[in-house]
Amino acid sequence: MIQMEFARQNKATDAMRAVAGAEGVPLGELVARIAAGTVVIPKNAGRGFTPRGIGKGLSTKVNANIGTSPLRACPSGELEKLDAAVKAGADAVMDLSTGGDLPAMLNLVLEKSPLPVGTVPLYAVTAGRLARGLAPAGMDPDTLFGEIERQAKAGVDFMTLHCGVTRAAMATLDQCGRVMGMVSRGGSLMAEWMAENGQENPLYEKFDWLLEICREHDVTISLGDGLRPGAVHDADDRAQTFELVLLGELAARANKAGVQAMIEGPGHVPLSRVASNVALQKRLCGGAPYYVLGPLPTDIAPGYDHIVSAIGGAIAAAAGADFLCYVTPAEHLSLPTAEEVREGVVASRIAAHVGDIEKGLPGAWERNLEMSRKRALLDWEGMFALALDPARARARRGDSGEDGRGVCAMCGEMCAVKSHARAREARERKAGGRG
Amino acid sequence: MIQMEFARQNKATDAMRAVAGAEGVPLGELVARIAAGTVVIPKNAGRGFTPRGIGKGLSTKVNANIGTSPLRACPSGELEKLDAAVKAGADAVMDLSTGGDLPAMLNLVLEKSPLPVGTVPLYAVTAGRLARGLAPAGMDPDTLFGEIERQAKAGVDFMTLHCGVTRAAMATLDQCGRVMGMVSRGGSLMAEWMAENGQENPLYEKFDWLLEICREHDVTISLGDGLRPGAVHDADDRAQTFELVLLGELAARANKAGVQAMIEGPGHVPLSRVASNVALQKRLCGGAPYYVLGPLPTDIAPGYDHIVSAIGGAIAAAAGADFLCYVTPAEHLSLPTAEEVREGVVASRIAAHVGDIEKGLPGAWERNLEMSRKRALLDWEGMFALALDPARARARRGDSGEDGRGVCAMCGEMCAVKSHARAREARERKAGGRG
Repeated sequence: MIQMEFARQNKATDAMRAVAGAEGVPLGELVARIAAGTVVIPKNAGRGFTPRGIGKGLSTKVNANIGTSPLRACPSGELEKLDAAVKAGADAVMDLSTGGDLPAMLNLVLEKSPLPVGTVPLYAVTAGRLARGLAPAGMDPDTLFGEIERQAKAGVDFMTLHCGVTRAAMATLDQCGRVMGMVSRGGSLMAEWMAENGQENPLYEKFDWLLEICREHDVTISLGDGLRPGAVHDADDRAQTFELVLLGELAARANKAGVQAMIEGPGHVPLSRVASNVALQKRLCGGAPYYVLGPLPTDIAPGYDHIVSAIGGAIAAAAGADFLCYVTPAEHLSLPTAEEVREGVVASRIAAHVGDIEKGLPGAWERNLEMSRKRALLDWEGMFALALDPARARARRGDSGEDGRGVCAMCGEMCAVKSHARAREARERKAGGRG
Repeated sequence: MIQMEFARQNKATDAMRAVAGAEGVPLGELVARIAAGTVVIPKNAGRGFTPRGIGKGLSTKVNANIGTSPLRACPSGELEKLDAAVKAGADAVMDLSTGGDLPAMLNLVLEKSPLPVGTVPLYAVTAGRLARGLAPAGMDPDTLFGEIERQAKAGVDFMTLHCGVTRAAMATLDQCGRVMGMVSRGGSLMAEWMAENGQENPLYEKFDWLLEICREHDVTISLGDGLRPGAVHDADDRAQTFELVLLGELAARANKAGVQAMIEGPGHVPLSRVASNVALQKRLCGGAPYYVLGPLPTDIAPGYDHIVSAIGGAIAAAAGADFLCYVTPAEHLSLPTAEEVREGVVASRIAAHVGDIEKGLPGAWERNLEMSRKRALLDWEGMFALALDPARARARRGDSGEDGRGVCAMCGEMCAVKSHARAREARERKAGGRG
């Protein structure tokens, strides 16, 4: 039996108990949400690690993408990024490798990662073809299902599958007048295959086959948004919304078959559309967990897209998004370095935490309050301990406090905390004198 | 005559013409907004530079704070920060120096800055007392007015004056149960002076005197929010709101006297309160320009408060905030370095731009669209030219494109832009074949 089946029989697994404990959520409620498809625990039946829950009433999670590319295929470098992501506090990683020995790379990541591991199986098939000088569109669909099964057996916990890139969706896209067309790698490759072969998307047409494989290994399906906008100009158009309707239907079908599912979301979205997009996803997809990439409320800041993404991600999380795929400063420019992976994870964790405050999650508000209490006492060690990145906070403070007066190099003795304390003391003293 | 008087007589100054031209706003509308107090052009009558407008219908502006501290008093280092701020695209700087020879430092900044320069005159008076071993609360109020006049004569364009820190406001504060009390340096120093001397705030009591000085030199008053929250827990409480009501009254009095005024705002604010705070400021202050510090929707990310601030600043700008005071990664920890100044300005400029898209300002949406068009063509030079920080974008891309195929090291040939182009071409070809 797999997790969703246990949940439907109102039975808790070890994974559910671990998640309920970590999140401070009553176990019965968690089990009910998994049964309803509003929470997923991405965890392959064949892999062991501390599981994470994603979805309704749980803290917002962060995913970090790692993986080789054809131009930078260095497995040890990617393992350094895995390590950087884990240390920075990521909740999941996706191995999006497309260069070098892909099965070996994936096995390494599965072996080393203490976090759930996701993939986009189409990448492996396509990268293999490109490495052999073959056109992506010549792929036999059975090869793709074979790769999905191979990865499921290898232990992958969740897979991005672009099932909503259908012929009807493509016809809608062609009428939308987008400036950026498709920016999803998997989605655009699937679209190319469909166009060249004049056939429907096999992941859509043979969705039941997909569900069988996922069921067998308890793989969570991450329904890919092949039609996500790659420009704020393109956000929320008919093509994107058409696909989202389909993804909602497919999530329901997956759940019916006992397969956990989440929905992938944008992408480039103007600020004012971020919250409404989350609300629409929740409505169309029966409350399935929403896994957004960013969102990025502007296109013009390459080199700083982790900051752009923190803006959109905070608003999305506050509006109910459950899982933030990080964006690094290298986005739109290059494969990230390990340091850029770290920066990306931290920026997304800030966004997730800001969202968690708004979600009213236990501990989120309190952690801010506790930090402020330490700040009011100029208790620097206390502040560092509560900081999202204690080492960085300590380093940035540098030698400011070496004089032992507790102040910082910004204000020295002209410290508002100190003036305020003296002022309040004086008001109390004078009031006492008058009393 | 000073700017507001010209505007009231429906006459345009050179500064107004320059701002109208730079912003693409009809001159008559700009003049009317200056007359109404919804736009300010901070520019001392005695200083020459390309002026910036701040307020209704204009692009969101960014201020960078620089200045020495008692623990780090190096004028040349602060001039490097001025340079970093200017190069990164700041629209104004404040010299908040509190260490070393303050009048000399201010003169240097006024001489070198191509941007409007702001100050907090109380800092100079207090720093001078502390340097001589005197208690801040022993200040003779006339000394403060003398310093304000000296700085106005020296050419300061706008001054933060904490006029709303009144005895009534303090009484309200003492009932609020704040965790962080006051975090405004100027505000808390004024509160200390009031408490120790048992007197009303001279900046409030003798506000007309202040207006006379500012009128004389056309100094824009930035009404300081001494009671801004320093913890998300404290946001929007009665003390803060009480002060905001006062600041609205004082802005109206300033405008009546022909003095331009803007209102300073928070600070630490949970995400869901950012937009409503801006709406309240606009209502209570007759649409006066709003100059916010951040806002910061979480307290727990010291070392990354430029990112936290970009989240809050984007939402504030989208909701109508006019002027963003940057926050650097050193905030809450230390005096920033020149590199941290640069990072802070860029983060705030991202927030300002995201806000400008939502404000529907001319060119904001179009710049994103143009960037996306370049991206769809893999036109890297075009992307760099449109990027907020072209040098950083180019550097982060690194040697990705050296192979001349136009792709990047993230995806190599497995590029969604390329697959999409091939897919669309194939759909068109097949459709043509069928037609």
